[in-house]
Amino acid sequence: MKTMENSRQYRGIPDEEFFRGKVPMTKEEVRGITINKLRLKGGETLLDIGAGSGSISVEMAIAVGKQGDVHAVEMNSEGVQLIRKNREKFSVDHLQVHHGKAPEALEDLPVLDGVVIGGTKGAMKEIFEVLREKLRPEGRLVINVLTLENLSLAHELLKIHDYRDIEIIQVAINKGHSVGNLTMMKAENPIYILSATKKGESQ
Amino acid sequence: MKTMENSRQYRGIPDEEFFRGKVPMTKEEVRGITINKLRLKGGETLLDIGAGSGSISVEMAIAVGKQGDVHAVEMNSEGVQLIRKNREKFSVDHLQVHHGKAPEALEDLPVLDGVVIGGTKGAMKEIFEVLREKLRPEGRLVINVLTLENLSLAHELLKIHDYRDIEIIQVAINKGHSVGNLTMMKAENPIYILSATKKGESQ
Amino acid sequence: MKTMENSRQYRGIPDEEFFRGKVPMTKEEVRGITINKLRLKGGETLLDIGAGSGSISVEMAIAVGKQGDVHAVEMNSEGVQLIRKNREKFSVDHLQVHHGKAPEALEDLPVLDGVVIGGTKGAMKEIFEVLREKLRPEGRLVINVLTLENLSLAHELLKIHDYRDIEIIQVAINKGHSVGNLTMMKAENPIYILSATKKGESQ
Amino acid sequence: MKTMENSRQYRGIPDEEFFRGKVPMTKEEVRGITINKLRLKGGETLLDIGAGSGSISVEMAIAVGKQGDVHAVEMNSEGVQLIRKNREKFSVDHLQVHHGKAPEALEDLPVLDGVVIGGTKGAMKEIFEVLREKLRPEGRLVINVLTLENLSLAHELLKIHDYRDIEIIQVAINKGHSVGNLTMMKAENPIYILSATKKGESQ
Repeated sequence: MKTMENSRQYRGIPDEEFFRGKVPMTKEEVRGITINKLRLKGGETLLDIGAGSGSISVEMAIAVGKQGDVHAVEMNSEGVQLIRKNREKFSVDHLQVHHGKAPEALEDLPVLDGVVIGGTKGAMKEIFEVLREKLRPEGRLVINVLTLENLSLAHELLKIHDYRDIEIIQVAINKGHSVGNLTMMKAENPIYILSATKKGESQ
Repeated sequence: MKTMENSRQYRGIPDEEFFRGKVPMTKEEVRGITINKLRLKGGETLLDIGAGSGSISVEMAIAVGKQGDVHAVEMNSEGVQLIRKNREKFSVDHLQVHHGKAPEALEDLPVLDGVVIGGTKGAMKEIFEVLREKLRPEGRLVINVLTLENLSLAHELLKIHDYRDIEIIQVAINKGHSVGNLTMMKAENPIYILSATKKGESQ
Repeated sequence: MKTMENSRQYRGIPDEEFFRGKVPMTKEEVRGITINKLRLKGGETLLDIGAGSGSISVEMAIAVGKQGDVHAVEMNSEGVQLIRKNREKFSVDHLQVHHGKAPEALEDLPVLDGVVIGGTKGAMKEIFEVLREKLRPEGRLVINVLTLENLSLAHELLKIHDYRDIEIIQVAINKGHSVGNLTMMKAENPIYILSATKKGESQ
Repeated sequence: MKTMENSRQYRGIPDEEFFRGKVPMTKEEVRGITINKLRLKGGETLLDIGAGSGSISVEMAIAVGKQGDVHAVEMNSEGVQLIRKNREKFSVDHLQVHHGKAPEALEDLPVLDGVVIGGTKGAMKEIFEVLREKLRPEGRLVINVLTLENLSLAHELLKIHDYRDIEIIQVAINKGHSVGNLTMMKAENPIYILSATKKGESQ
């Protein structure tokens, strides 16, 4: 192997390499798809709402590189601690942790190139309102939902707020587990990933 | 957005941005998971066997960066042309295209840090034989299969050739399609992704 | 094998045994689950709205037996012809075909023990209104939907109309197809099946 | 509702109506598909190998009616007790319980019209040997497997023993669970269902 540029290039981090605690964590495969839907080219300013243990935030930070910025918003204290530990482990200083609840915690953020919504605590509508200002025209929005009601609501809000290229996918992963010398396929819970581009105002 | 470092950072390329022809193409989500399973850090020398239109090869080349190398092997002439066009479009000069069939086409390759097998034309056993030499200890092997027989064969070969941390996942993606003002979920065919690490000889 | 009682016992009819035309047909596995969710004991009076080629109606008629009744409502003429041909093929004279559109076509029907909604042509709300009278207390309602909007609407209506034991499942079937001497798994489109019991008025 | 003929007609029994203990139980939807794949017409003599709590055996007994016979083989004592309790609950006297292990426990059985294999304890090969005699020509065999190795083995054996119309499906069910007033889709583990017809010797 030739010399590595630096750790920022790291791609596809296995779940078990993150500090996790008891906070539920988005699984590796879903994390990878989520970040890809941001259509990153490097250098972006991003936001992760409901960051949990920070696994998505960390990989976003690696993806944008040190010319970029990532803001993680998490209301749970244990989560905030985990994000800090993961930030240190993966040396992503350009990841900033905000302890608080969206949309209030978003007020002081700069204009964003992309946003991931992983959890909303019932405030999805209010978050969309704030993103009218905070997400730049042509910016990308990716939303992960586990419930049918939030799937429906997120879809509705994307249309109301005039996003374009709305895509909805459902991801189902089965993973082989060894049982003696047999391999049993076990299902992970399905997740819906919505993604879209904010319409450009001056275009 | 701050200035982008360069196009190599591009992550999560939508299917429609590739030149495709009639060659079947691995879908975006599966492509992303496949590359993540290589556990790349930048600078690696990689191989894509049965590269098709080169969509995986291109994203591998972007992922390893210009300090790395990617070799794409494809026996179909139309495929080889498409890979060349995609290489040009995404400016990944460190992607080398080899027109031929594995394992023969692998003979002159350097030692590899990681290998993706996307198609084998019935020669999976012979490919594993060649990888005994060509894939370095601790190198990563990722295999995408669509059929039950190749799933079984690939799993068997990984065990026979003494790979460790063998993982098997099945990925199923449903995608929303607009039908009037309704959104119908349509299924993409499921794919099995096997991945493993080659045992280190001197460890 | 001992002597069969009569053809009504037939269970699990393969898709290819039905007359089909170009009308889309619910697949065997989904048909079986749908009918099971009616929780039949024999002798019921049932309704199939949007009956298509009548495959569900026929199996419902077999399931309730000759002491029961099944009404199939279909607005497409080709569908109506197919239902009649399938009725004849499977000797289920107690299956009555109504050419028309729900809810109008439901007006002259007797009180029902169970209803399957396979298609609504945008009139799901009106159909629920009619079922306030036509579906008996403790009767069963099963709804098959392919789109996210109808999933959401059906779920909403079940709650508004005070149904109990509401269950939502998503069924995904992959089927092996021979490609040479390999078996490729191909996906059928996922379907959502909602089922519930109408609250008893006098209980 | 008109008068019911008798309890044999009961179709689509919910999981929670069976006595279950700690024995793993095939879920309702899979049970329904499994029985449908037997292509029953009533009056058959059937066998359920690895019957567990007897939920499939009971529904098979209901499906064949009192002119038929069902034999349930189960090696676990708790399972045998549960099968007996479920037999009583659903009044299916023509279900016979055999405490033992296949293939030994199959020796005294009559010739069979159809067989479900739900568990083999590693003896699938031996079970196929016994079915050469015990399953009649044109009889149906349905096999449920959870592991990749048994999927592969069952497929292989069906081909070696010259079965025809071999079908393999994978069934994945997601079920909605209420979390507050949201509905979270949770996955049940996928199952593979193989089914085939034994070649007729004199046809």
